[in-house]
Amino acid sequence: MKALVLCSGGIDSTTALGIAIKKFGQENVIGLCMSYGQKHVRELESARAVAKHYGIELISMDLSKIFEYSDSSLLSHSDEEIPKESYAKQLDGAAQDETVSTYVPFRNGLFLSTAASIALSKDCSYIYYGAHKDDAAIAAYPDCSEEFNNAIKTAIWEGSGHQLNIEAPFISKNKADIVKMGLELGVPYELTWSCYEGGDKPCGKCGTCIDRAAAFAANGIPDPAIQ
Amino acid sequence: MKALVLCSGGIDSTTALGIAIKKFGQENVIGLCMSYGQKHVRELESARAVAKHYGIELISMDLSKIFEYSDSSLLSHSDEEIPKESYAKQLDGAAQDETVSTYVPFRNGLFLSTAASIALSKDCSYIYYGAHKDDAAIAAYPDCSEEFNNAIKTAIWEGSGHQLNIEAPFISKNKADIVKMGLELGVPYELTWSCYEGGDKPCGKCGTCIDRAAAFAANGIPDPAIQ
Repeated sequence: MKALVLCSGGIDSTTALGIAIKKFGQENVIGLCMSYGQKHVRELESARAVAKHYGIELISMDLSKIFEYSDSSLLSHSDEEIPKESYAKQLDGAAQDETVSTYVPFRNGLFLSTAASIALSKDCSYIYYGAHKDDAAIAAYPDCSEEFNNAIKTAIWEGSGHQLNIEAPFISKNKADIVKMGLELGVPYELTWSCYEGGDKPCGKCGTCIDRAAAFAANGIPDPAIQ
Repeated sequence: MKALVLCSGGIDSTTALGIAIKKFGQENVIGLCMSYGQKHVRELESARAVAKHYGIELISMDLSKIFEYSDSSLLSHSDEEIPKESYAKQLDGAAQDETVSTYVPFRNGLFLSTAASIALSKDCSYIYYGAHKDDAAIAAYPDCSEEFNNAIKTAIWEGSGHQLNIEAPFISKNKADIVKMGLELGVPYELTWSCYEGGDKPCGKCGTCIDRAAAFAANGIPDPAIQ
């Protein structure tokens, strides 16, 4: 049995990778990382460092042309600044069904569909990805919702001729739970990257930096990536 | 209201385009055509000719790198010949859940997800595509099945924050029905292309050529694309 793991270089996907490697063995796991025009290309270096750490094949795909019409603030062609607030704060007062500026249109759907095409070609039976409860709770990220996750799982199962399963091991867990699991597995968090800004070091102020720091604090340790 | 239409240059998608243009007006319709490494790139020229005929914007996307690991006989890097039989005949004796050599892994899922990302960026509320009953009946094309179509429709609706609908106007129609609708709409079938081979003229022998000829014959006319 083989598994393809969506690797962003962050905490969630790196922990999902650790779980898949423990289950299938490093020789049966392939990583997949995506360039999509993101400002934070630094995360791709982290994905490569993590893949090297585990000794797995890492496939890179460039999907940036698909997003060239999007005005998401996450994308390098956007002049809009990434909000320096936690996600929950960005959403204060937002109407239901309203997305935030960091929403990249149907990104998770596109990533999972791309992963499905590659996984089938590579004879994988599983796709692992790091969707979790915190993201699912954010109405402004509709492609993280439970309804979306259930539907895309079915679409990939049916559309692959019952060959391919989606595994989202953190779907009912929060980021602190994920870090707890990862610490037990020896996941190399010192190699990971979460910051949405394009700097050399994490900014410590953007939504992902804030949420990441809180997840390590909940486990009683400082962030191993920050020296 | 705006619509994005998946355009392959063939009969089904060109008829779907004709329907969308009649409903929304040519200025509110965008075409999207995909290079995916197919041998029959001639279909892309047809998609461009059809878009020019209707005076609509046509976006081209190259997804071929995603399929570079696939051994589908439809792809230009494959040495395998495309079977010269109708789909039904290819499947004689095939086990349930078995795919045929012309299956391109999760192609429809990837195409629809790509379309969803672009449609949201372009403020479209609808994606039209030419899925039909004949394809859905072929177990070897799981990404044409009713179960797949229902699930991906839900995934895109949920993952877009209830912004984007999939319209598959031929889901309960066969190819002869589609041609009948298209003839009434004045769809320029003389510009379309269906052949899976890479020649200058349709081969007349591959599965798509056979099925196409039958659809026109059922409407009592010869294929307008063949002179």
